[in-house]
Amino acid sequence: MHSPSSTSEVSRPFLTWQRILDWAQEHYRYRTFTKDERIPARPGLLYLVQRGAIRLVGTAQITATTSSSAAKAMRLSPEEAFLGFVGAGQPFEIVAQSPFTLQAYAHVDQTSVVWMYWHDLDNWPHFRREVFDAFRYQHQRKLLWLSTLGQRRTIDRLLGFLTLLIEEFGEPYENGYCLPFPLTHAQIGSAIGSTRVTVTRLMGKLRQKGLIRTQGDNLLCLPISTLGSNNNN
Amino acid sequence: MHSPSSTSEVSRPFLTWQRILDWAQEHYRYRTFTKDERIPARPGLLYLVQRGAIRLVGTAQITATTSSSAAKAMRLSPEEAFLGFVGAGQPFEIVAQSPFTLQAYAHVDQTSVVWMYWHDLDNWPHFRREVFDAFRYQHQRKLLWLSTLGQRRTIDRLLGFLTLLIEEFGEPYENGYCLPFPLTHAQIGSAIGSTRVTVTRLMGKLRQKGLIRTQGDNLLCLPISTLGSNNNN
Repeated sequence: MHSPSSTSEVSRPFLTWQRILDWAQEHYRYRTFTKDERIPARPGLLYLVQRGAIRLVGTAQITATTSSSAAKAMRLSPEEAFLGFVGAGQPFEIVAQSPFTLQAYAHVDQTSVVWMYWHDLDNWPHFRREVFDAFRYQHQRKLLWLSTLGQRRTIDRLLGFLTLLIEEFGEPYENGYCLPFPLTHAQIGSAIGSTRVTVTRLMGKLRQKGLIRTQGDNLLCLPISTLGSNNNN
Repeated sequence: MHSPSSTSEVSRPFLTWQRILDWAQEHYRYRTFTKDERIPARPGLLYLVQRGAIRLVGTAQITATTSSSAAKAMRLSPEEAFLGFVGAGQPFEIVAQSPFTLQAYAHVDQTSVVWMYWHDLDNWPHFRREVFDAFRYQHQRKLLWLSTLGQRRTIDRLLGFLTLLIEEFGEPYENGYCLPFPLTHAQIGSAIGSTRVTVTRLMGKLRQKGLIRTQGDNLLCLPISTLGSNNNN
């Protein structure tokens, strides 16, 4: 289900990856996290997901509201936005640009991460190129993501968002593709500028129309027909 | 006003850039566009902005609406989302991933673009690294952009969006920074999932609060105080 330009397969030539893993363990640059544990990632370092999946989350401490009650609410719970997953074999990095903060969390149990300085990549010049290609690919996906977030109707943003996510991370299941891990309605809402309540309501609508399905333990699925019909639009 | 990690200055070592320009002109890979002219960019090629600025626009032909009137409206005018600028010295590329389409337009008159195949970069290995770093930087900026689009209140998304844009492309002017080229309210709306009418109304509010300013021929400005206060949040 990966797009042709996906680099997630080619970026994991087994031998190089094994050598990096050995190097990381030897230098204590390897750690395994439990579900929802925060990765203590710092700007300026490069992180590689070896196993599991990372959830990137952004916080925008910017508000046009000056009333004290709203400001108080902000301080109590700044809005966290879900910015996407980083799957096994993929790199990620953290940016700090006030008033924005990025954070990475293990999205599933047993998520393992390797980290290094950028200059450490000099040891594996071919791999460096793959890391850069992977970031290029991630950038392209974010442009598509922004395309769908520009849509005015929340239900269109929701369907576009789910399509992109399942296209990239979905695994084949019966007549469609499913996300291999759960994503809450609150997380989805935080990605598309909506609320948990609205997402729950619109997910119901999409389900009624047969555009999405839910599988087993709350896994999100797109039937082939949804992907197909939108592709042929 | 560029952030410390900006690569737009360092990515233009004058000699390499001049050599690339000579090469591009010699190989007919150089063209100048007028304002709002579409760049006939294709996926798989690399584009460099030599002068002026590019406006990236995405179209999401995905909709949860099945009623014929809405479908007709879609066909008449698919929603175009403003995805950002690419300034002089910066690379860009186009992705095609149905049902999404990306397009590039000259945002100002006299915008010049160089294009090449990726393997042409082999001629300038140092420059290749700079191109990749520039894409990494653009990716980081898009993550921040997504952080602000996750905010529920439209006015917060609007202020966050303007802050990011002016931080990156703004030029110093009196007590603040201004975008050096105009951006319509419809374009802003298309970026933050809102409408021209709502943007006009909210811009009025932000102006009243002194959080933004408009300069001369409709140029958007942020007073230092806005950048400062949000930075200190």
